[in-house]
Amino acid sequence: MATAFVPASRISTMISPAEAYRIVLDAALPLPARRVPLLEALGKPLAEPVRADRNYPPFRRAMMDGYAVSLASAGRTIDVIGRRPAGRTTSSDIVTAQGCVEIATGAACPPGTDAVVRKEHVRCDGHRVILPAVIEPGRHIAEPGTECSKGEGFLKAGDIATPLAIAALASAGRRDVAVVPAPRMAVIVTGEELVGGGQDLRDGQIRDANGPMLTALAAAFGLAPPECRRVGDDRIAIQAALEASSDCDLVVLSGGASVGTLDFAPRVLADWDAEILFHKVRQKPGKPLLLARRGASLVFGLPGNPLACHFCFCRYVQAAAAKMCGRGPAITGEGRLAAPLQPDRGRTFFVPARFDREPSTPGAWQIHPLRGVSSADIFHSHQANAYVEVPRGAEELPAGTTLAVSLFAHVA
Amino acid sequence: MATAFVPASRISTMISPAEAYRIVLDAALPLPARRVPLLEALGKPLAEPVRADRNYPPFRRAMMDGYAVSLASAGRTIDVIGRRPAGRTTSSDIVTAQGCVEIATGAACPPGTDAVVRKEHVRCDGHRVILPAVIEPGRHIAEPGTECSKGEGFLKAGDIATPLAIAALASAGRRDVAVVPAPRMAVIVTGEELVGGGQDLRDGQIRDANGPMLTALAAAFGLAPPECRRVGDDRIAIQAALEASSDCDLVVLSGGASVGTLDFAPRVLADWDAEILFHKVRQKPGKPLLLARRGASLVFGLPGNPLACHFCFCRYVQAAAAKMCGRGPAITGEGRLAAPLQPDRGRTFFVPARFDREPSTPGAWQIHPLRGVSSADIFHSHQANAYVEVPRGAEELPAGTTLAVSLFAHVA
Repeated sequence: MATAFVPASRISTMISPAEAYRIVLDAALPLPARRVPLLEALGKPLAEPVRADRNYPPFRRAMMDGYAVSLASAGRTIDVIGRRPAGRTTSSDIVTAQGCVEIATGAACPPGTDAVVRKEHVRCDGHRVILPAVIEPGRHIAEPGTECSKGEGFLKAGDIATPLAIAALASAGRRDVAVVPAPRMAVIVTGEELVGGGQDLRDGQIRDANGPMLTALAAAFGLAPPECRRVGDDRIAIQAALEASSDCDLVVLSGGASVGTLDFAPRVLADWDAEILFHKVRQKPGKPLLLARRGASLVFGLPGNPLACHFCFCRYVQAAAAKMCGRGPAITGEGRLAAPLQPDRGRTFFVPARFDREPSTPGAWQIHPLRGVSSADIFHSHQANAYVEVPRGAEELPAGTTLAVSLFAHVA
Repeated sequence: MATAFVPASRISTMISPAEAYRIVLDAALPLPARRVPLLEALGKPLAEPVRADRNYPPFRRAMMDGYAVSLASAGRTIDVIGRRPAGRTTSSDIVTAQGCVEIATGAACPPGTDAVVRKEHVRCDGHRVILPAVIEPGRHIAEPGTECSKGEGFLKAGDIATPLAIAALASAGRRDVAVVPAPRMAVIVTGEELVGGGQDLRDGQIRDANGPMLTALAAAFGLAPPECRRVGDDRIAIQAALEASSDCDLVVLSGGASVGTLDFAPRVLADWDAEILFHKVRQKPGKPLLLARRGASLVFGLPGNPLACHFCFCRYVQAAAAKMCGRGPAITGEGRLAAPLQPDRGRTFFVPARFDREPSTPGAWQIHPLRGVSSADIFHSHQANAYVEVPRGAEELPAGTTLAVSLFAHVA
């Protein structure tokens, strides 16, 4: 295993968080659309318009349980000459002034039908029914094509596949539909000090938090659970893990992107013919953030520190994933600080926070910073739902200061 | 197959939508908690508090890549006597005024360390380093237990398992955690006129939209994909499908809950020893809604009409599922009608709508009703994200009227 110390790598020029964000969006390209089964399309924007294969309803549909009647029979007592359940048209009954047909909601009206009279509005007399004096023409009948006519486009490209859209697709005989699929993601967690759940800890070791966290972040965003590989601080092992992830659209590497002498990621990526798009961002946390591109894949190098890793995933990796699958950007807002906050002099400071309605002022939102005792502290920030962006500065920001927030795209 | 017509069933007393909602919430009981793997807990409220198994950090952790030094060596040029990568404590080096140790972020500080000096703040001179004149005691060292001390509760029962909470659980050695699981749901779609996707249509037949829609609604709510059975209007087949679903917490039966003579559901449920809690609600759509209880299972009878089925799922089935798994109620709000709307004289009218910000008035929301041409029209309402509740009345409500909405709990 290659574990020798080498001198710190060259100092790269740091870019601003806004510039890094722009480079991420430029580098992330929309994935090609493909046909997926309807349920897999749920929540995704459609990549094709969809037209009706026939009229809807396809026939004169009874909209109520009752009797298919002719207008000429209004106010009369007439024979029930047949019964028509939904889904069956085998009967040859024809509705006339002398005879009506008992009909179920959803059934096709027999020839001669002018209206359907609701079951509750007739009186039964053996095999005869007494009809109301006034019958409105066309009442409780949906005419063919009135909901959607054959060839009409009922879904546009870009429409979201909601459950109702899936119902319309299924109605129109579609079993699959073209969507831009969610990107495939691989996670590689590096760090000699990390052990997996269930293993014994030796002195100086800690348990891996980033693997489970990144998997949960991917799932919360709606991605398929990524394959998660844990490797030591070892060039050959990292190279092998990258190679195994090369069919993924996004590779998230945690740890190993800083100036530490064991931090191989930038060199391993260069050896792997990946083009490094940026390395180091003027932000706290997440200064060592790295973005590389290899073919159609984007590789993010995220800090090993769990909070910094979480922040970089929410701000940058999610933005790339959203662009790849045609989703909009993260939801942003503004609120007032519920407690004072000390900015950083040199870097934009992103602080996990709870973003909530202000109980006293309708329409106003407040920001409760949830900073732990250190940037590695994940024990005091787990109820955060947003990052608040604190511009560089020297002076403490008092409670009440208005700041911008980005909401997590979490399920919670 | 039993398809004979029988007289319309007795008229049941209709209850209000508010009363039906209250009965649903009373009948839905919280499911017992169980331990699930961390990823399965994502987004769910925890059913147990969680305490730290040891101190975090567990040792004096270096927070930067640099040199572990003694305060006595400030301003001096001293030997680098060893190297300490993260995860290894095998070296027996002791830091003194004459010798420091190169250290990586995340490593345990050697005995004698007073501070870590960042790599960027020293000058290297072969195997010696020139240290800054002033070294702050404790700088860049996280002391044991400062993030979380052994035995401290870092998660409470009721806290949501966010990705950061999952990171904290994994750090503390937990591989599973107690949550209230999502209810198991079964779907039974009835209707002789319905055929599945990919099958040929005969005259009078239509394709099943409710099966795919209910499956998507369950998935959008975060439930495991329900088993979906499609049966004809046939008592024996419905009974068999209910029997096969009897280990589920929620059974959703679509079609067959109205007064139509082929609508067996109420009688089949009574034969199956299910207690009918209500049948028929003073609402449009969804008047035939039925709720029954059998042991710990709730059985919903939903109208076959896809829009009515969708509405009843969103308002009633989701409320029961949320109560069972400890989630809050649906998000509600108020907005102004963007177009006039005609209420129903006799029933509360729930209209699918798009609920959006009003572009001209910050903080205000508007309601765009998305009524299709009929209550069975799913082609013109698929971009709805809410139901607007229109109280009973005779007069048309003008644009600008303020009304209450319930948002769907959809992924879109």
